[in-house]
Amino acid sequence: MQLNNRLTEMLDIQYPIIQAGMAGQVTSSEMVAAVSNAGGLGTLGAGYMTPEIIRKQIQGIKKLTDRPFAVNLFVTHSIPTYSPTEIQNANDRLKPIRDELNLSTPKIDEFSIPFEEQMKVVLEEHVPVFSFTFGMLDSAWLTKLKEAGTIIVGTATTVREAIFLEQAGVDVVVGQGSEAGGHRGTFLGDSQHSLVGTMALIPQMVDHVQIPVIAAGGIMDGRGVLAALSLGADAVQLGTAFLTCTESQTPVVHKELIMNSTEEDTVLTRSFSGKHARGIGNSFITQFKKYEENWPEYPIQNALTQDIRKAASKQGLSDYMSLWAGQGLRLSQKRSIHELMQSLVAETEQTLEHLGLMKNSLK
Amino acid sequence: MQLNNRLTEMLDIQYPIIQAGMAGQVTSSEMVAAVSNAGGLGTLGAGYMTPEIIRKQIQGIKKLTDRPFAVNLFVTHSIPTYSPTEIQNANDRLKPIRDELNLSTPKIDEFSIPFEEQMKVVLEEHVPVFSFTFGMLDSAWLTKLKEAGTIIVGTATTVREAIFLEQAGVDVVVGQGSEAGGHRGTFLGDSQHSLVGTMALIPQMVDHVQIPVIAAGGIMDGRGVLAALSLGADAVQLGTAFLTCTESQTPVVHKELIMNSTEEDTVLTRSFSGKHARGIGNSFITQFKKYEENWPEYPIQNALTQDIRKAASKQGLSDYMSLWAGQGLRLSQKRSIHELMQSLVAETEQTLEHLGLMKNSLK
Repeated sequence: MQLNNRLTEMLDIQYPIIQAGMAGQVTSSEMVAAVSNAGGLGTLGAGYMTPEIIRKQIQGIKKLTDRPFAVNLFVTHSIPTYSPTEIQNANDRLKPIRDELNLSTPKIDEFSIPFEEQMKVVLEEHVPVFSFTFGMLDSAWLTKLKEAGTIIVGTATTVREAIFLEQAGVDVVVGQGSEAGGHRGTFLGDSQHSLVGTMALIPQMVDHVQIPVIAAGGIMDGRGVLAALSLGADAVQLGTAFLTCTESQTPVVHKELIMNSTEEDTVLTRSFSGKHARGIGNSFITQFKKYEENWPEYPIQNALTQDIRKAASKQGLSDYMSLWAGQGLRLSQKRSIHELMQSLVAETEQTLEHLGLMKNSLK
Repeated sequence: MQLNNRLTEMLDIQYPIIQAGMAGQVTSSEMVAAVSNAGGLGTLGAGYMTPEIIRKQIQGIKKLTDRPFAVNLFVTHSIPTYSPTEIQNANDRLKPIRDELNLSTPKIDEFSIPFEEQMKVVLEEHVPVFSFTFGMLDSAWLTKLKEAGTIIVGTATTVREAIFLEQAGVDVVVGQGSEAGGHRGTFLGDSQHSLVGTMALIPQMVDHVQIPVIAAGGIMDGRGVLAALSLGADAVQLGTAFLTCTESQTPVVHKELIMNSTEEDTVLTRSFSGKHARGIGNSFITQFKKYEENWPEYPIQNALTQDIRKAASKQGLSDYMSLWAGQGLRLSQKRSIHELMQSLVAETEQTLEHLGLMKNSLK
């Protein structure tokens, strides 16, 4: 089966299925290439990668596939203001965990974002698709990338954000429903009011922009793919469904927790990064719940907790890891990316045929 | 078009479209009968009605249609414990609003629920379908209703609740996604963890129960209907979409606010009733946000705010009304129930045909 439309044509992909650009160590060259080779669009989640690693990964992808792929970044241009006291307070709260992990409090003199350097690599490497979240890309970068033939994909959690991105010139917008795992892309509203379920978000967004909309949030199988297309989306973006795949470099303990958790187990927290994100609840989130609104902003808090997350991950200590996952996690399976992609396409087709039969049976 | 399946057969309805049983003054006999006459299942939202009014409304429905319909109740069996101080504190906080509305603080000696008397009417009137929320119906009533041939529909916000209801003997379960307007049906988990988007909730629920699942939350048009059926639901339940219909007795100011609000405008609050419910944000919710977790429980808080909501509604003062609405409210339209039902069916068919064409075009 093919499910072609204006977006699959624009992206030159076989199926309207996109693997979300999850930052961290999850999306290797192998994973991204596997998705693209299977007819979807793989995405390198490069948000936390150094420019050098991004270049290496992109070159690795190109060796493994001649199909289009995407690179995803956080468009955080500047460091928010902060006081030394704020940093001190955060580190004081984190100290018991650092003690437990045998970590000393790192002395961070300066918070910086290598965004400009990351973007240079994206431009130089002629990336087919560039997607981003947390706001809007500078118009200078937008122009340069468009001139280079790169397709630009923004992320919106409300209709207002989608309209903003369209007017600012993106080619495609991802509509991120409240079910989605990982960071919320919200940049205009507040976190509470921008927490809109995919079922409600997508048709309203589709009605208000002309550009293609990619549905994200809670989509895990062919039923979800067909549902999103029914709502008017041109494609779907899945994150959690790819996390438990063989090629995913998600830590084993994280994969196991996804396989053994339910839709009641995820929560939104800003304790890890300073921005709201959805993951499986653990001791870190629970014990810091009272500070939820008092942590430094992203990316400061993210930098402050980095050593903890890294050490916990190395030790397989899920209590202090960020266990990002969406609300559809009961539908996770362990399999190869090729198998996942084949299932998605086959289930979508079966579901469509089933509905067609249901309709015709008693016409 | 027909979209028949085991549930439309069980309920003996033409289309798998159910009008949610919204409590309050919204669902009159005329409205319920109009939905059923149009091929769906109308529901009398009888939660706040006296037994006498329920009987009168049911008899009114029967005069207007010979099609099946449902009656919906809250299964709140007992009054939670409370202290006089708690009541006093709540009334103290409400006093400035009462002053503004020229209301004196009512002296409520006793909180009571006429649940048993309401149920007697439901049984005596041989209601075709009985739906409920906030928990599980007593097994004694379940047995009696089943003997009378009534089909029993429970409400679940998580897979766990759906399994609980199925094991307790309901015939059908409504899966209420986080997008839904009005009261959350949550009865096993807490409000945060049970706030699961429809896109994620329905396929997981369908996989874990044998009985038919009705999808609710964020469904407003034919795109949503087809999406829900794709996810594996046997039918859909819409609330907000019916609120702005001509036959709906929703206050004009409430209808206007639904027509002019966006998906960013609804919030969850327990200030009106003591139970979490989704509605359009207003002064009442904002000014009492700090007491969110400290109000008396349902139905006590509901009884305490009743005079305020009633007076505000009479005066068309939206600041102090409970403006229940789901997150799909941009898709609301003013039209007759017949027109809404016809649109839902036609759009569902068009969307299905569109997807079928998309599939076949490049096979």
